Amino acid sequence: MHENIRVNGERLWAALMEMAEIGATPKGGVNRISFTDEDRRSRDLFTSWCESAGLTVKVDKFGNMFARRPGRDNSLPPVMVGSHLDSQPTGGKYDGAYGVLAGLEIMRSLNDGGIETERPIEVVNWTNEEGAILKPMIGSEVFTGALSLTDAYAMATPTGTAESGLDDIGYKGDLGLWSYPVHSYFEAHIEQGPILEEKNLQVGVVTGAFAQQWYTLNFTGLEAHAGPTPMASRRDALVGAAHAVLAIREIANGVEGGRGTVGCITPYPASPNVIPGAVDMTVDFRHESEEELEEMTSRFEAAVGAIAEENRLEYDLNANVSIARVPFHPTLVGYVRTAAESMGIGHMDIVSGAGHDACHMAKVVPTTMVFIPCENGISHNELENATPKDCEAGCNVLCNAVLAAANSTETLEMKP
Amino acid sequence: MHENIRVNGERLWAALMEMAEIGATPKGGVNRISFTDEDRRSRDLFTSWCESAGLTVKVDKFGNMFARRPGRDNSLPPVMVGSHLDSQPTGGKYDGAYGVLAGLEIMRSLNDGGIETERPIEVVNWTNEEGAILKPMIGSEVFTGALSLTDAYAMATPTGTAESGLDDIGYKGDLGLWSYPVHSYFEAHIEQGPILEEKNLQVGVVTGAFAQQWYTLNFTGLEAHAGPTPMASRRDALVGAAHAVLAIREIANGVEGGRGTVGCITPYPASPNVIPGAVDMTVDFRHESEEELEEMTSRFEAAVGAIAEENRLEYDLNANVSIARVPFHPTLVGYVRTAAESMGIGHMDIVSGAGHDACHMAKVVPTTMVFIPCENGISHNELENATPKDCEAGCNVLCNAVLAAANSTETLEMKP
Repeated sequence: MHENIRVNGERLWAALMEMAEIGATPKGGVNRISFTDEDRRSRDLFTSWCESAGLTVKVDKFGNMFARRPGRDNSLPPVMVGSHLDSQPTGGKYDGAYGVLAGLEIMRSLNDGGIETERPIEVVNWTNEEGAILKPMIGSEVFTGALSLTDAYAMATPTGTAESGLDDIGYKGDLGLWSYPVHSYFEAHIEQGPILEEKNLQVGVVTGAFAQQWYTLNFTGLEAHAGPTPMASRRDALVGAAHAVLAIREIANGVEGGRGTVGCITPYPASPNVIPGAVDMTVDFRHESEEELEEMTSRFEAAVGAIAEENRLEYDLNANVSIARVPFHPTLVGYVRTAAESMGIGHMDIVSGAGHDACHMAKVVPTTMVFIPCENGISHNELENATPKDCEAGCNVLCNAVLAAANSTETLEMKP
Repeated sequence: MHENIRVNGERLWAALMEMAEIGATPKGGVNRISFTDEDRRSRDLFTSWCESAGLTVKVDKFGNMFARRPGRDNSLPPVMVGSHLDSQPTGGKYDGAYGVLAGLEIMRSLNDGGIETERPIEVVNWTNEEGAILKPMIGSEVFTGALSLTDAYAMATPTGTAESGLDDIGYKGDLGLWSYPVHSYFEAHIEQGPILEEKNLQVGVVTGAFAQQWYTLNFTGLEAHAGPTPMASRRDALVGAAHAVLAIREIANGVEGGRGTVGCITPYPASPNVIPGAVDMTVDFRHESEEELEEMTSRFEAAVGAIAEENRLEYDLNANVSIARVPFHPTLVGYVRTAAESMGIGHMDIVSGAGHDACHMAKVVPTTMVFIPCENGISHNELENATPKDCEAGCNVLCNAVLAAANSTETLEMKP
């Protein structure tokens, strides 16, 4: 067992603030979309910081960046720690950047203390996590082989393809994808939800990520004039959709830990004095447990049929995205929990409701995450906020968990 | 009392079908938007038919057309009968055209029978009833003085202004607006609702038009990520909007003859995995009785406040359009009812849920309308349909009601 080391919270905060100047928006957020000049500048800044810290930066063929600090035995697979520097068009300062710069701060702190680790450690910046111009989490998806490099390169962007985008910013690297074994992957991130803040805790020990089931749902009735059509004669698709919105909420409320959301709803023809003849909507159900998710979705599917019948509507329900539950690695989860406990940092186990690069990594490499609170749970928003104290606490926990992995010479089994 | 005369139903139907060729769409509807070449061609065809029937066609400064058949005493104010030839972009063959061509058929039938009337009769084609490029019912609004000619001319269209649009099609006429007294106005129209069809009746004796109250309604909550945000922490604006949609339906269901409709609903930011932080929607309440309308809207306004409070939302409710109830003239309504009864045509009293040029006219001239059924109540749609038998029956009733007015030498008081 090593003694816990402490990172430099002020330096971490200064790095976060300096990075946030790249793509800074008037409302205090950042606009740092992949393959833009802001993306390039954030990568350049990260590179210069890494090199100043004595790290060796390599870039793979999809632009994923790996900044290595050697270990005592460089034949051992490295521990990776990171996240992403790209943002939503009106994103915040912390989503992604915190995970990358916490990784960097760990390296700097190890340097400060002259601390060697058994394994090499690499700080990672994944390409295009946000999906503002491509599908989200594509860098880690390509890295882990879930998506072929050829297919990823060919994806269209507003100005060309993913490949031309990487060329444009000078970050189509030479390193092969996953060209050497990886011991483990850690990612620190703001929670993007209100739970830690509500419980006044500084760290979430992330045990996995939710299973998800998404749908598109269409109700079709009969478009008709809002004046001459008596209520009893109507086949109002929006009334069906409203029942569905409330049913989804009731179903998710009825299952502990469940989530059910309608984000998009579009009526046709969308005229104030026309009864909507059709409505398209999206549905997003999530749960930590696949069984509970199945319970929610089967109730939902039955509810849609009943709503359509009661309101004399046709419907078309399409299960368009299914994401299995992602369990994180219990050994790594244990490292995080132990670090928080031994440093007296308030923490709780938590399941990630959102997708992260860690979810792709978890399929092929032992993986876990560390969450810190964000104000009111707000993210993907210029108002996104986190405190210096929480950033520091999360980085301290991350650092000591990463150290535990980097000082272990054992290989972790994917299914222990 | 005169003996009922009968119009030529086949000729009326042939005129409807020939007019429907102008702007015909592949799905069997028409696209005859104001100030387009189709508008011009429909006006030219109408003019040629009127002139062949011996009528004198005049065009006023806003393009409204008046085709006069002289009476025995041409110093008496004329009876007007008509509607509009313009259509929605994907409109039907009957909405508007039926009223104009039924007026023409009356003239032709009177000619056939060599029938003279005391008063002149004029068939009217109002400019831009549909509002596909300007506000609706603008021709009759300008005619009746509710909108100034200067303001109407200045209104923007996709290609210029209303004035340039009239110039483009050669229908900016010389006739002054409402430059001579009018005895009465009749308008035949498809019902645009399902009531006559459901009751298997051929004619609606229209006693007036609904009072209307429109609103825009915004709910604002907190935009948040659909995954990490527990149900209990949410301030989901779409959940508030869904409650409002159902409350509106319940309120309208609870008042006999009420109508309540949400036609537009727009969530923000409209992403499948983001809880909507705000929703904009439109609300349209109508009732024959202004007291009942007031009852509905006051219940609605209270419901919105309660919904906002229960769902921890802010709201902004804006009453943006108020339209008073339009009563039609009881003497003219009586002419229509008597005509239907004496010809044994199945009929009922009905209130127009939609706005018509007749609603503008009713404010300044004794006015009424005749409705005929349309299939499934569908209008503003290429599928709009009516039967030759119903078109003929409605025209017979219209003809004999118009004759009753045209043969009366009495002046009708606006408020008898």
